[in-house]
Amino acid sequence: MPGNSIEPSRFAIINRMTKIIADITVSLDGFVAGPEQSLDNPLGKRGELLHYWMFRDAEQNKPEIKLLGSHEAYIMGRNMFGPGRGEWDLDWKGWWGGEPPYHAPVFVLTHHRRESLQLQGTRITFVNDGINSALDQARHAVKDGSIGIAGGASTVRQYILAGLVDELRLHISPVMLGSGEYLWEGLEHINFEQIAGRSTKLVTHISYRILN
Amino acid sequence: MPGNSIEPSRFAIINRMTKIIADITVSLDGFVAGPEQSLDNPLGKRGELLHYWMFRDAEQNKPEIKLLGSHEAYIMGRNMFGPGRGEWDLDWKGWWGGEPPYHAPVFVLTHHRRESLQLQGTRITFVNDGINSALDQARHAVKDGSIGIAGGASTVRQYILAGLVDELRLHISPVMLGSGEYLWEGLEHINFEQIAGRSTKLVTHISYRILN
Repeated sequence: MPGNSIEPSRFAIINRMTKIIADITVSLDGFVAGPEQSLDNPLGKRGELLHYWMFRDAEQNKPEIKLLGSHEAYIMGRNMFGPGRGEWDLDWKGWWGGEPPYHAPVFVLTHHRRESLQLQGTRITFVNDGINSALDQARHAVKDGSIGIAGGASTVRQYILAGLVDELRLHISPVMLGSGEYLWEGLEHINFEQIAGRSTKLVTHISYRILN
Repeated sequence: MPGNSIEPSRFAIINRMTKIIADITVSLDGFVAGPEQSLDNPLGKRGELLHYWMFRDAEQNKPEIKLLGSHEAYIMGRNMFGPGRGEWDLDWKGWWGGEPPYHAPVFVLTHHRRESLQLQGTRITFVNDGINSALDQARHAVKDGSIGIAGGASTVRQYILAGLVDELRLHISPVMLGSGEYLWEGLEHINFEQIAGRSTKLVTHISYRILN
């Protein structure tokens, strides 16, 4: 892996210790994005309401925002990176339009090959051979921190269903979406243990251990 | 109304002040009961897990349990009172098998007529002419307290959709049910404002003002 200088024998130990944390904001009715996601509406109809807690009340939610940004590597689905489907538009360099907020290696799941991108402070690697490969690559990129599964719903679900997520950090916004990207589909047999929670004005944060 | 001794002219004032509060426990995926509710399984498959916070951790959830029991009148759907459907089995006197926990007038919505029941500390009135009638009767029964909409999902939804609920007190248990009685159906256009929230070990309590 690029930038990796630790010998293989140490990996085994490091890998087992790395915590995998899914960190995602949902509506009261379990949607992480509204319907009709598009270039103009990355989070779908009314989806931007989900994240008011971060943008309109950052001060009150400082600890959670800090944790959200504290992972040493991130994995995300393609829609978290851009609006395109199918073959890549190589001019597209992420929703951020400049410096991405991650400042850590980001692994984007996609069915379509693309060379890695070095953006300001963040290297984006496109992974087209599955969630295990992305996780392996992320593990190699972290030292003693955690790996964040940043969304969307399908990516979070796939990692949870594969038994690979240790903790779900849920941010429940007081919003109903009614349709869109639904988080809970197919997770009905998953066992959660609530480990912490608190409310601020615009959101309730709850952390769950996933009992794999 | 039985037991009512306040003159009608005072009612109008009292009525407008009475707060209507829906107080209900949901799974992470929004179900207030599991599938296949029956006599042996009043809350459906795995539904009893929803209420562990009340029964296994009552001490930590004392304030919320106290509030839950502090309404001056309660309205509930028929399934909250018993397993029967269709004509009444007059021997059935509620799930409680003795003293109901309410100690306040309870109004049960039903399509089938039945005479009121006086149980230990709780009078049960069966209302078969709709949710507005039940609410009117409940308003006449309260003095300066609130009216609790105790469930199930359909009853809570009907009152919310009719614009009659001031506050939703949600208790989110760390449980997935996958199917059963779903709370959010048809509520996608409702606007909520989060007014308070806190977590204990087995549940997260969140109160929402409903912006009617």
